[in-house]
Amino acid sequence: MSERFSSTPRTRVVRLPDRASYDRQTLFAILDEAFLCHVAFSVNGQPYAVPMAFGRDDQHVYLHASAASRMARGAIDGLDVGVTVTLLDGLVMARSAFHHSMNHRSVMVVGRARLVTDATERQHALRRIVEHVLAGRWDEVRPPSEKELKATAVLALPLVEVSGKIRTGPPGEEDEDYTLPVWAGVIPLRTIADQPEDDGRLVPGVRRLDERRIATRVR
Amino acid sequence: MSERFSSTPRTRVVRLPDRASYDRQTLFAILDEAFLCHVAFSVNGQPYAVPMAFGRDDQHVYLHASAASRMARGAIDGLDVGVTVTLLDGLVMARSAFHHSMNHRSVMVVGRARLVTDATERQHALRRIVEHVLAGRWDEVRPPSEKELKATAVLALPLVEVSGKIRTGPPGEEDEDYTLPVWAGVIPLRTIADQPEDDGRLVPGVRRLDERRIATRVR
Repeated sequence: MSERFSSTPRTRVVRLPDRASYDRQTLFAILDEAFLCHVAFSVNGQPYAVPMAFGRDDQHVYLHASAASRMARGAIDGLDVGVTVTLLDGLVMARSAFHHSMNHRSVMVVGRARLVTDATERQHALRRIVEHVLAGRWDEVRPPSEKELKATAVLALPLVEVSGKIRTGPPGEEDEDYTLPVWAGVIPLRTIADQPEDDGRLVPGVRRLDERRIATRVR
Repeated sequence: MSERFSSTPRTRVVRLPDRASYDRQTLFAILDEAFLCHVAFSVNGQPYAVPMAFGRDDQHVYLHASAASRMARGAIDGLDVGVTVTLLDGLVMARSAFHHSMNHRSVMVVGRARLVTDATERQHALRRIVEHVLAGRWDEVRPPSEKELKATAVLALPLVEVSGKIRTGPPGEEDEDYTLPVWAGVIPLRTIADQPEDDGRLVPGVRRLDERRIATRVR
């Protein structure tokens, strides 16, 4: 497997190409840190961006949706989608309005998602989606029933047309703006997890979730 | 002004309608807490979801982009877009794979964005975008030059077709699953800001940004 995704006319980063990344390991790490993605798709010519859980393996991004959803109904013959993951790392405060920015890491996957119908691949995809939220969770919980599987549409999007964009560091300013008496720099942002909250109906003796299990995701 | 947005066929929440909100004040508060949105639009039939800064007033969501970007080039005659803001509040861990979920607050605005050409509205929009990141910032920094304005496309999307979705609380489980010896509950997530980092080129005497200025956004 190549270490880099090929840039295509649809995935080539048009603006600020020095921020582009096509490195497989870098982009997979961004996907793996994010809890949700936004999925762009059109219904009757109207684009929607819908926040969704997702999972991945080396070949596909997997999505799931209610079989009754707009997306699932549109996916029967394949659905053109854009899946984007964005991690916001900081607010970049410049001396000029124009050069304000955000430090972020994003990955965009575009292409045609297919409805997964094979039972084995559906199980695999759903496992990847649950495991994406919390590694090890699938084997701890009750697997989907026949009824639940029937209510769930699973989509697979090939990890082929993939690009990333990464911005780090302080603001880029016009040379003459450095004399302005304005504070400039970065306000770092990050996601943290607070202590897990029991749902109040635990079977006696069940241990609280070990917080370290999500520590790599919330820095 | 009505206190609620009207539900339309395009903004009606199809799935889990008990999580829907059309309340103006509630949805505006979600928009105002988010630093970025994802914008869905199509180019040659391919949908993209692009993370972007944004601003708003009571009538419009404002977006800006490089005049050379895919989005700006597509917006000359108006561009159908879906703008979505999502705040992730927690990971909902259920006793079954199927009932895993995420606590979140999201707002979706759909419709046709127009390219803003009026100079006064363009200034207003850019001010709203900068102020959305940090209230009071516009008046502290150098305003856009003619050259910078020329390089910037500004889009306005009417706040008319707007819907929200909110999930809170513990997992919803099947009754029979409560006997399973599995930890279930919520892992709360939130965004925090660390201490602002100077860019190292401040004019002597410039004071560090007061962190309290973003305290309402990062709980």
